[in-house]
Amino acid sequence: MRVTVSRRAHFNAAHRLYRPRWSPEKNEAIFGKCNNPHFHGHNYELIVSVTGEVNPETGYVVDVKVLKDYIKSEIEDAFDHKNLNLEVPEFKEKNPTAENIAIVIYNKLKLVLEAHLDLEVTLYETPRNFVSYSGK
Amino acid sequence: MRVTVSRRAHFNAAHRLYRPRWSPEKNEAIFGKCNNPHFHGHNYELIVSVTGEVNPETGYVVDVKVLKDYIKSEIEDAFDHKNLNLEVPEFKEKNPTAENIAIVIYNKLKLVLEAHLDLEVTLYETPRNFVSYSGK
Amino acid sequence: MRVTVSRRAHFNAAHRLYRPRWSPEKNEAIFGKCNNPHFHGHNYELIVSVTGEVNPETGYVVDVKVLKDYIKSEIEDAFDHKNLNLEVPEFKEKNPTAENIAIVIYNKLKLVLEAHLDLEVTLYETPRNFVSYSGK
Amino acid sequence: MRVTVSRRAHFNAAHRLYRPRWSPEKNEAIFGKCNNPHFHGHNYELIVSVTGEVNPETGYVVDVKVLKDYIKSEIEDAFDHKNLNLEVPEFKEKNPTAENIAIVIYNKLKLVLEAHLDLEVTLYETPRNFVSYSGK
Amino acid sequence: MRVTVSRRAHFNAAHRLYRPRWSPEKNEAIFGKCNNPHFHGHNYELIVSVTGEVNPETGYVVDVKVLKDYIKSEIEDAFDHKNLNLEVPEFKEKNPTAENIAIVIYNKLKLVLEAHLDLEVTLYETPRNFVSYSGK
Amino acid sequence: MRVTVSRRAHFNAAHRLYRPRWSPEKNEAIFGKCNNPHFHGHNYELIVSVTGEVNPETGYVVDVKVLKDYIKSEIEDAFDHKNLNLEVPEFKEKNPTAENIAIVIYNKLKLVLEAHLDLEVTLYETPRNFVSYSGK
Repeated sequence: MRVTVSRRAHFNAAHRLYRPRWSPEKNEAIFGKCNNPHFHGHNYELIVSVTGEVNPETGYVVDVKVLKDYIKSEIEDAFDHKNLNLEVPEFKEKNPTAENIAIVIYNKLKLVLEAHLDLEVTLYETPRNFVSYSGK
Repeated sequence: MRVTVSRRAHFNAAHRLYRPRWSPEKNEAIFGKCNNPHFHGHNYELIVSVTGEVNPETGYVVDVKVLKDYIKSEIEDAFDHKNLNLEVPEFKEKNPTAENIAIVIYNKLKLVLEAHLDLEVTLYETPRNFVSYSGK
Repeated sequence: MRVTVSRRAHFNAAHRLYRPRWSPEKNEAIFGKCNNPHFHGHNYELIVSVTGEVNPETGYVVDVKVLKDYIKSEIEDAFDHKNLNLEVPEFKEKNPTAENIAIVIYNKLKLVLEAHLDLEVTLYETPRNFVSYSGK
Repeated sequence: MRVTVSRRAHFNAAHRLYRPRWSPEKNEAIFGKCNNPHFHGHNYELIVSVTGEVNPETGYVVDVKVLKDYIKSEIEDAFDHKNLNLEVPEFKEKNPTAENIAIVIYNKLKLVLEAHLDLEVTLYETPRNFVSYSGK
Repeated sequence: MRVTVSRRAHFNAAHRLYRPRWSPEKNEAIFGKCNNPHFHGHNYELIVSVTGEVNPETGYVVDVKVLKDYIKSEIEDAFDHKNLNLEVPEFKEKNPTAENIAIVIYNKLKLVLEAHLDLEVTLYETPRNFVSYSGK
Repeated sequence: MRVTVSRRAHFNAAHRLYRPRWSPEKNEAIFGKCNNPHFHGHNYELIVSVTGEVNPETGYVVDVKVLKDYIKSEIEDAFDHKNLNLEVPEFKEKNPTAENIAIVIYNKLKLVLEAHLDLEVTLYETPRNFVSYSGK
C-alpha cells in the first residue's frame, strides 16, 4: 500500500529573471517585469510530497517531523530571506524561474531522502502561479 | 526534465442543468436544485496545468504571461459574466455540468497551445466541488 | 466579557444588476457585464458574526448549532440555487448588489436572533470582492 | 472521456499515535507529542476524488449529491466528533496515522461506489500535513 | 498613526464540552456531539492582533519575531498536542469553548505584551467557526 | 445604511529593512534576516476596504471596477515587480516595513477616493503576517 505524504513549507526571497548571454533588450522582451535589475520577490509556498509503502509498525510512510527537518535544513535555511541570484550557488548560472527552483529543490531533497521514496515538489511562486516536478 | 506549470484563473457565470429530451419530472429527479429554470450561478475557479520540457535558455516550460493571455482570450472572454446555457455555443446542446465545462475548456486551450505540451484542466464549481480533465 | 462568534456558510445564485427606471444604455454604462440580461452568478460565501456576553454556565455567546440552523432556514433555503432577481421577493424592487444582499441578510437574521446580540454580516461575492454590514 | 470529480468534506476527531507492543519510551521516541496518552485532535479535511467516464446523458461521472451522501454515511457519521482510537473499530488495532486513516476511508468508500470508478482519497490532518491514497 | 499588526499561529488539541454540575442528560442536550466523554479535537488557527503607534525609528508597532516568540512560549507550548480539559490548568474548571479559549489566550498574552498595546485574539476552532475577543 | 466594500489585490516586490543612521550591527540586531543587503521579497496581498452610504439608485457604496482601477493605477503600477527601497520614492527615506507600506498605500488611495468615504488598508506581507491601517 503506497501512500503519498505531503508537507507544506515556505520561504521568502528576491530574484530576477535574466540570461547573461542575451542583450538587455532581449532579456526585457522575454522576461518583462521579471527582468527588473533591482530585483523583485515572492513568498514561495512549497509542498514536498513523498510516496512509499506504509511501515506496518509505525503506520508512517515517512516521519513528517523528519521530513520537516530536511526541508528546513536543505531548503529554508538555504533560500529564506535570500537573493536567489546573488546568494544561492545553484542560481549563479541558472535562471531562478519557478521551474528551475523546483528542480533544484527536488535534487537537494532527493539526496537526503531514503532512496526507495518517490518525490514530487510543488512550488507556488504566487497563489496564482505554481509548478510541479517529480524527476521525470 | 518535464515540469508542470499551472496558472489559476476565474470566471463567474449562470447555468442550469437539464436535458431537453427528458420530461420536467425526470430533469427535476436527476438534477434537483441545479435544474431551476431561472438559473443559478457560480464563481468558477480554473487551474490550467501545462507539462513539458524546460527550455534550457529561458528556464520556462511556457511563458506564464502567454498562458494567461490564452486563458483570457479563449475562456474568460467567452464565459465570464455569461449564461452558459444561453450564450456559450458549446452548451447549446451539451449540459453545462462541471465535467462538460472542463472538457470544453480543455478542447479550446488544446487548440492554441503548442502541440508538444500536455494539458490538464481543473475546474472548481464551488470551493467544495471540482473536476479535472486531461484528455484521456 | 463580550466575544464575537462567527459562522461561515455559502449559497450559489444567479443575478443581474439593473435599474428598471433607467434606459438599457444607462444600465449598461453603470453596471457593465453585471447587467447581462441573461444573468450570471456567484458562489456567495457568508460570514455571520454575533457579539454578546459569554454565558458563564455554557461558555457560549450563542450555540453555533442554533446559529447554523438560523442561517440555513433564513438564508440558504431562501437564496441557494435561486435567481435572486426573479425568485427572491426582497430583490423584486431592489438591485441585488453585494451591498443590498448583505443588508437583506442582516435584516432577516436580526429578526430571529435574540435582541441583545449584535450582528455583522460579511458577504463574499467572489474571493476578491466582499462587503460587510452591521446595521449602522 | 475520463474525468475526475472531487468532493471536499471534513470531520473533527481526537486521536493519539502509539503501538501497544512497544514500551512507553519507544512510543515516546517514535511518536513524540502525538503519543500524548490524553489524546490531541484535528480538523480533518477530506477530498474524495472519483474518476470515470462522463455519462453522455447526464454529463456526470457521478452525481455529487450521491457522493456527498456516501461520504456522510460512511465517513462523517463514523468519525466526526469521535475519539478514533477508542470509538472507531478500524483503529482498535491500527495506529490512526493520517496514512492509515486515508486507507480506511478509501476501503470504506470503495465498497459502496460503483466498481468501475477509480478512487483517490486525500486527507489533510492539518493545513500543512496531508496524505493521498489511491489503492495502489 | 496607529497600525494593527497580526500574526497567525496554530495548535492542535483535544477537548470536550461539559459542565460537571449538570447531569449527563443536560450536558448531552446542551453540548451534543461536543460532549463526547472520549473527547474530540481540532486544529486551532490563531490570529493575534496588536495595535499601537508605529515606532518612527524602526517602522514597527511590534517586532513580529518577538510576537511570534510570545505566542510560542505562552500559547503553543501550553496548548499544542494537549488535552485542554485534562492538561491545561485554565480549563480545569472552565469549559473549553472557543469563546473561553480565546479569553484565556487574550489574558495570557496581555500579561507579557507592553501595556500600551491593544490586543485582539481571533481563534478558528474550524475553518467555518471562529471567535474574536479584545478585552471588552 | 453604511456598508464596507472590500477589494483584494496583490503585487510582488523586493525589499530590505534597515535604517541608514544605524550601524550595520544595530541594523542586524534589530532587523535580523530582513536586513539582508541583497534584499528578499514578498507576494504582498492587499485588501482595500471602503465604507460609506449605499447609493439608493445603484445599490453601490462604490463601483468596484472604479476601486479596482484606482488600486491598479496608484498601487500595483507603482509597486509591482519593484524594489521598494530603490525604486519607490516613498521608501527612499522610510523603512518599507509592512506598517509603513500600509500607511503609504492608505495615503495614496485617500487622495483619489471621494472624501466622504472611510478607508482601511490591510496588507499581508506573508500569509502569516499582516497589518491594517485606517488613518487613525
